[in-house]
Amino acid sequence: MAGPAKRPVASGLRSAPLGAAAATPLVHLDTGQPPFGPAPAPLSGAELPSFRYPLGTMTAQTFDGGTAKEANVEGFPVSDKLAGVYMTLEPGALRELHWHANAAEWAYVIEGRCRVTTIDPLGLSEIADFGPGDVWYFPRGHGHSIQGIGPGTCTFILVFDNGYFSEFGTFSITDWLGHAPADVLARNFGLPATIFAGFPKSEVYIATGPVPAPLPQDPAPGSLNQAPLTHRYQLLAQAPERFAGGTMRVVSECEFPISSTMTGALLVIKPGALRELHWHPNAAEWQYYLKGTGRMTVFGSHGRARTDEFAAGDVGYVPQGFSHYIENTGDTDLEVVLVLNNATYQSISITSWLSSTPALLLATNFKVPESTFASFPKGEVVMPEQD
Amino acid sequence: MAGPAKRPVASGLRSAPLGAAAATPLVHLDTGQPPFGPAPAPLSGAELPSFRYPLGTMTAQTFDGGTAKEANVEGFPVSDKLAGVYMTLEPGALRELHWHANAAEWAYVIEGRCRVTTIDPLGLSEIADFGPGDVWYFPRGHGHSIQGIGPGTCTFILVFDNGYFSEFGTFSITDWLGHAPADVLARNFGLPATIFAGFPKSEVYIATGPVPAPLPQDPAPGSLNQAPLTHRYQLLAQAPERFAGGTMRVVSECEFPISSTMTGALLVIKPGALRELHWHPNAAEWQYYLKGTGRMTVFGSHGRARTDEFAAGDVGYVPQGFSHYIENTGDTDLEVVLVLNNATYQSISITSWLSSTPALLLATNFKVPESTFASFPKGEVVMPEQD
Amino acid sequence: MAGPAKRPVASGLRSAPLGAAAATPLVHLDTGQPPFGPAPAPLSGAELPSFRYPLGTMTAQTFDGGTAKEANVEGFPVSDKLAGVYMTLEPGALRELHWHANAAEWAYVIEGRCRVTTIDPLGLSEIADFGPGDVWYFPRGHGHSIQGIGPGTCTFILVFDNGYFSEFGTFSITDWLGHAPADVLARNFGLPATIFAGFPKSEVYIATGPVPAPLPQDPAPGSLNQAPLTHRYQLLAQAPERFAGGTMRVVSECEFPISSTMTGALLVIKPGALRELHWHPNAAEWQYYLKGTGRMTVFGSHGRARTDEFAAGDVGYVPQGFSHYIENTGDTDLEVVLVLNNATYQSISITSWLSSTPALLLATNFKVPESTFASFPKGEVVMPEQD
Repeated sequence: MAGPAKRPVASGLRSAPLGAAAATPLVHLDTGQPPFGPAPAPLSGAELPSFRYPLGTMTAQTFDGGTAKEANVEGFPVSDKLAGVYMTLEPGALRELHWHANAAEWAYVIEGRCRVTTIDPLGLSEIADFGPGDVWYFPRGHGHSIQGIGPGTCTFILVFDNGYFSEFGTFSITDWLGHAPADVLARNFGLPATIFAGFPKSEVYIATGPVPAPLPQDPAPGSLNQAPLTHRYQLLAQAPERFAGGTMRVVSECEFPISSTMTGALLVIKPGALRELHWHPNAAEWQYYLKGTGRMTVFGSHGRARTDEFAAGDVGYVPQGFSHYIENTGDTDLEVVLVLNNATYQSISITSWLSSTPALLLATNFKVPESTFASFPKGEVVMPEQD
Repeated sequence: MAGPAKRPVASGLRSAPLGAAAATPLVHLDTGQPPFGPAPAPLSGAELPSFRYPLGTMTAQTFDGGTAKEANVEGFPVSDKLAGVYMTLEPGALRELHWHANAAEWAYVIEGRCRVTTIDPLGLSEIADFGPGDVWYFPRGHGHSIQGIGPGTCTFILVFDNGYFSEFGTFSITDWLGHAPADVLARNFGLPATIFAGFPKSEVYIATGPVPAPLPQDPAPGSLNQAPLTHRYQLLAQAPERFAGGTMRVVSECEFPISSTMTGALLVIKPGALRELHWHPNAAEWQYYLKGTGRMTVFGSHGRARTDEFAAGDVGYVPQGFSHYIENTGDTDLEVVLVLNNATYQSISITSWLSSTPALLLATNFKVPESTFASFPKGEVVMPEQD
Repeated sequence: MAGPAKRPVASGLRSAPLGAAAATPLVHLDTGQPPFGPAPAPLSGAELPSFRYPLGTMTAQTFDGGTAKEANVEGFPVSDKLAGVYMTLEPGALRELHWHANAAEWAYVIEGRCRVTTIDPLGLSEIADFGPGDVWYFPRGHGHSIQGIGPGTCTFILVFDNGYFSEFGTFSITDWLGHAPADVLARNFGLPATIFAGFPKSEVYIATGPVPAPLPQDPAPGSLNQAPLTHRYQLLAQAPERFAGGTMRVVSECEFPISSTMTGALLVIKPGALRELHWHPNAAEWQYYLKGTGRMTVFGSHGRARTDEFAAGDVGYVPQGFSHYIENTGDTDLEVVLVLNNATYQSISITSWLSSTPALLLATNFKVPESTFASFPKGEVVMPEQD
């Protein structure tokens, strides 16, 4: 039981020098784990780790009809609250019926079209088609399937509210039924055991088959809005918030009631512009860079800031409460999908904070004349444009 | 700080071969613990551990008037979310006034009768008698006592919503007052210190005394239903759901409002029948086998399935989201008490899922003709009967 | 995978002898961590650790205009759910704009006056003055500043709902902006980069400046009550609950709606009196001893009780569900600030419990005659007076 009880008592609020403090991490596992904290070990050092994971350059697992690759704590240890998968499906290719025991799933369709089926614990099911800019959300443990319906490849990003999401949390129906004896299946379904003789004995993961016929009505004729508890939200159909430097669309539980553990957003930053300095008090942020090139700086307290360069296909991550900003470093729009692990969207921007604080206090805080702040913007800017 | 940062980056969604992946568990303790996940180490290997704990064969701790034995992570490491105790009390034997600092308590009376007293933080108390098939629930930290009131031995199962429940979480009144100086007790109660001279100096745990007189009215004359926040729910008085292969009674927060962290159920499976393939998206399941013999198969993803044989007195466990089914392997009814660590009951059965999914999709998924599914049952079966 | 699976199976409810059991802690980290439990390692041994941390004797970190020192798991490992800071600010000294990424903040002003500014994710801000006996609460991640406004030193206690709170969770505005390039700030604010040339390049922490002018109206003329979501609650203005041995004021979410994760209290115990034996089912307790001298005994189950002596400046801690009592051992009032990590106040006292339990049951439990309890107090005493 070599634990913190044997460590020297801290003599002040902050040890000095910082390097020494950082070399003595606060993580003492044998004292038990609080609901939040301690900080993950990668965040306790003198230097911050990279907040970029080059998912686009990783080799995908390939299947007949599709591909998949993932980012989770195994390769990207700082991302302990959220994980993600990049997947492609050809027309007719079916990501088979499955569920996740350890995470809810949020998705954004990048291109192409797919059909999704779901089932919930009340036995209610939904079948719906998704296209570019559409979002789905499946609560933890709900069964679902995804099939490409063409034309062309369907590409999408899946995001999970558990950085430890992995293969050990994914349950596929062929793997499941393939490991149940035929006589049990026969009794379960009240059918002859022979009917299951041709079923796969191991996990199919992605199967190929015919593209199903169009749904009778999707969306229903005359309907403009989704039903409250549908699994689909058409994010690109939302009128974006417009700022000088770009646009933002947010889909939280308010807009999409089934999304009870995550909020998503689509950010478009104009060339030369930026998403201003801000932080999210209630959530970690997982990012997928869709188009363009950008640069994100994350501030991690204690003089620690880290800047990484991002391009299409990269994943980014920001721990809860860490401040950050994103610059468009290219000549074209920078598009980023953001997912936060909280159903409520919360953000505090530097312009909002400073403009609500008396100039005299700012002058004292920054050791500059009070007049310095006369020209500062009033109210939140969110996405300033380059001059 | 030897952590995941130093591990090679994963190159795809699923490493191959599986055995190698399994030998490199995803549990990196020095990265901090997310709210759910990583999977407990016993579930990260190539093989699943046993989901059976032979509590019936364990030696009980014996006291004058009663016995007790428990199942928790110490002997049954996979059961990290729920623990249980099997206890017996002779007439007049009193499981003394105590509380649990680290778990709520759910109980099912197997045989005999007992009287329970409780107190809550508002100072409200309840005294009620329990018989076979009755359930109680005490929120975490609420004070209570249990006394056998005969005739015969009273036997019951206690279930706690914390697999780490143990002796370090149980606070008994004699142990407590026995370690308070007499002068403090005197001041606390405004009484002479001598009055406490004969009090026990250490934990009594189970005391023996006279069987108390019958309660004036239990249940109150003419009453058919419990008051909303009573600690007692008479599960056997509930009309069961009837299926071809047996019956099920469920007591969740809906039926028993005080039960805010657990749901219980009593399952009776006819000889040769089974509880069909299903999973619980929102909870782990702790089982106590009351009567008969059975077999449970748990599917744990990644080609891992485990079958264990159960008899009366055994404890079973199913991690959250893991699919499973239970067969009656004997000539008599199989009776099982189930407890889930969620106040809301949720379950998804294979027949419900398949019958809500288009046959063409199933044909693609299972690589068999679409006509295969014409004879499959429509709707959820829950408990099919043997042919 | 050296885990509990390899340990011998427990043969009964409680191993014997106790010392042996205690030497084999139940904390097996490689089985994963449940939401609550296992007990922190300092609480799993044969002896309880000290529940006192002599914060008053620690050397403070000193700044121009103020001082700070803290108690967290690093020096006081048992306090895993709550941490605290003792801070002083001279008139004009400003604890700069900052936020905490890993905890909400509750505070009690001991002496002097200060002005607080806050900002929330909706962009709503508040500026308010605080004096002795005033409490504030900032939700996790909300921006704030604190400035001494004289006359005299302002002294206060900050309490955080995370024992792992530390320097790695505190984000200061100068540290933040000092690590953002001037050209980024220029673009963010739409201003010339030169305007930021004089800003600090590293963390200021406490700055000094002029005392700001009085607020136009604080409190607003004619107002008696705070608005529902103000950050200020004037605890000393609350009429206390009066008991024979002292008084108690409690501020939970009921009285102070913004305080959604913590409850505070001010306890005044008369000389020779005590806060009777009790426990809090739903919360751990963090204490700061303001005045006088006292003695607290904590009972930790399994025959383990620990008594510590406290004086002004000491910090105390009681784990969730652990019973305890506090005696005034001096000639003057003992004043203690208590903070619980739950928005709802819950407590069960020994007099409440015993008076609601039948005397026959108590006689059986304590092995004394039923008549023993005839003279016991009826109802809860809370704070008995010395005879």
